[in-house]
Amino acid sequence: MDRDALLAGLRARQPAALARAISVVENGRAGFEPLLSALHPNLGQAHRIGITGPPGAGKSTLTERLVAAFRAQGHTVAVIAVDPTSPFSGGALLGDRIRMESIALDPGVFIRSMATRGSLGGLATSTREVCDVLDAAGFDRILVETVGVGQSELAVSRMADTSLLLLVPESGDGIQTLKSGIMEIADLFVVNKADRPGADKLRQEIEITLGIRRGNAFRHVPAHHGFTARTKAETAALADRADGEWKHPVLATIAAKGEGVDAVVEALDAHRTWLEASGTMRERRRRRLEERTHEVVDRALVRWVWDETAAAQAIRERLDDLEAGQVSPYELAGTILDALKQGARP
Amino acid sequence: MDRDALLAGLRARQPAALARAISVVENGRAGFEPLLSALHPNLGQAHRIGITGPPGAGKSTLTERLVAAFRAQGHTVAVIAVDPTSPFSGGALLGDRIRMESIALDPGVFIRSMATRGSLGGLATSTREVCDVLDAAGFDRILVETVGVGQSELAVSRMADTSLLLLVPESGDGIQTLKSGIMEIADLFVVNKADRPGADKLRQEIEITLGIRRGNAFRHVPAHHGFTARTKAETAALADRADGEWKHPVLATIAAKGEGVDAVVEALDAHRTWLEASGTMRERRRRRLEERTHEVVDRALVRWVWDETAAAQAIRERLDDLEAGQVSPYELAGTILDALKQGARP
Repeated sequence: MDRDALLAGLRARQPAALARAISVVENGRAGFEPLLSALHPNLGQAHRIGITGPPGAGKSTLTERLVAAFRAQGHTVAVIAVDPTSPFSGGALLGDRIRMESIALDPGVFIRSMATRGSLGGLATSTREVCDVLDAAGFDRILVETVGVGQSELAVSRMADTSLLLLVPESGDGIQTLKSGIMEIADLFVVNKADRPGADKLRQEIEITLGIRRGNAFRHVPAHHGFTARTKAETAALADRADGEWKHPVLATIAAKGEGVDAVVEALDAHRTWLEASGTMRERRRRRLEERTHEVVDRALVRWVWDETAAAQAIRERLDDLEAGQVSPYELAGTILDALKQGARP
Repeated sequence: MDRDALLAGLRARQPAALARAISVVENGRAGFEPLLSALHPNLGQAHRIGITGPPGAGKSTLTERLVAAFRAQGHTVAVIAVDPTSPFSGGALLGDRIRMESIALDPGVFIRSMATRGSLGGLATSTREVCDVLDAAGFDRILVETVGVGQSELAVSRMADTSLLLLVPESGDGIQTLKSGIMEIADLFVVNKADRPGADKLRQEIEITLGIRRGNAFRHVPAHHGFTARTKAETAALADRADGEWKHPVLATIAAKGEGVDAVVEALDAHRTWLEASGTMRERRRRRLEERTHEVVDRALVRWVWDETAAAQAIRERLDDLEAGQVSPYELAGTILDALKQGARP
């Protein structure tokens, strides 16, 4: 399949073209950057939603419910499940993919898992690039689900238009999470398994912390007591404040039973409306474009230095001297860098 | 303190000089690379031991016991506790530092925690550099304790002379760990909490997998039944096979009671003896020197491009075009890279 055929197939959302384009991008195969480059003018239609949280919070269950809700509204949905974890946890942290089977056969749904191969940084970049492919293919919603360990929350917040942080009462992460600055990167908080003890307390803690952060600790909106979905009117009110700051919703769900999921969908939509109206969407997209270009330069630079210049050879030639302590890695790196700065070629 | 005074203080293991040198290196402050460069000829005396495993395996407890055992032998010991995890887990995954209090006041012991700030790759590099400082300061043993999530196992195996993987029966990681290739990076396996159910089974699984890997599945050494420390003679026999492959010990401990810890110390020493005698130590150190130089070049390259050239400005100037889809991040990165390759200056 040549690139024009691939692009045409992708825009028509043909499964074979989609699978091939993602595979090319994910694995950095020959021509992946020109492909992404060709997609660039078509981006920006999808709402990119990041879902993160600790292991066992119910991310896969909520994701499945959100997919069903979006589908019921007539939207196409792509799901990327990112596992930045080690072999210790296996796939377990991301939940059982089989639970997605209710949506797996729907042609309007696309599901893909991505695992860490090289660095986490590399994973984040290639996840963003796969999102671009899905965006160009016309998916209305892209859900990126990632387990909350390592730098994944930060990586998610940088790839998503809207970041949802999922917590559970029993994880005991409440206070620690609030203190840690992780709050800063979430646009939307959801307390799942809200029928369990401690759910109200966790919601209150989040609300209070949000209040303190806004500098109005004494005027914060009290958390709902018991399991109470935010009303449509309440959620709509959030989007109306397009001129002001985004008021972070703190919602409650019992994802396994589907309870509270509609309110999450509404809050996600409200956030997107706010993003657009407030100019924040444009700002975030511009920042992402800037960051992406940085990343591509970094990646290309490293590839150039090690694949096309004499740098690797220069290190091998001095290995005996390095071992004998006659030159340090820092001195040798300095020499190599000086040569590169002069425009050294192979 | 100028560099010569710092170096002199460091070699005398003065606490103030040590703290200052580590701080300079860990935070990448001005002059950190020349400092590391000056230390380079003095490296290679310490035995660098990595200890990794899943949360709750008892890494801190074992570490504390190992420190006490090394101290009883008259060795100085440095401990670096690396937390590559997110705010979700807080410091909890690495265990309570307070448990180290029995050793914290011993002037022959140095303990330092390091947390993820930037990328995990960056953490791994700076951990290795802090190890260099401790090595140059004359510590006989450097223990690097890291929780088994993310890419940390791999990072540990690359920084340590000897990698110890700590497992526990109840973690249920047995089979998954064995399948996952994580085995490949450990030199020594320890089943902790060996008085709990499943300890024998886990040890057997490890032994069998090791046997299969060696291609002699039918001749593998059977696991000990019940809690039985490997005898001194058995451990010594391992080191004798300097001409052959390293036979990975699979030990059992109850670290909380100190049981089996001496055998772990013996196996660690035996592994170092084997490393030296077999030439593997030299090979590993050479590979590490090569990798380190690569990393330093990469780091310096990125710093150069973004701090000293016009690359960042070039992106900012084209941000409107990026947003309008008139140029893609890939095309723009290509232009910037071409300029850099020609030896473009600020």
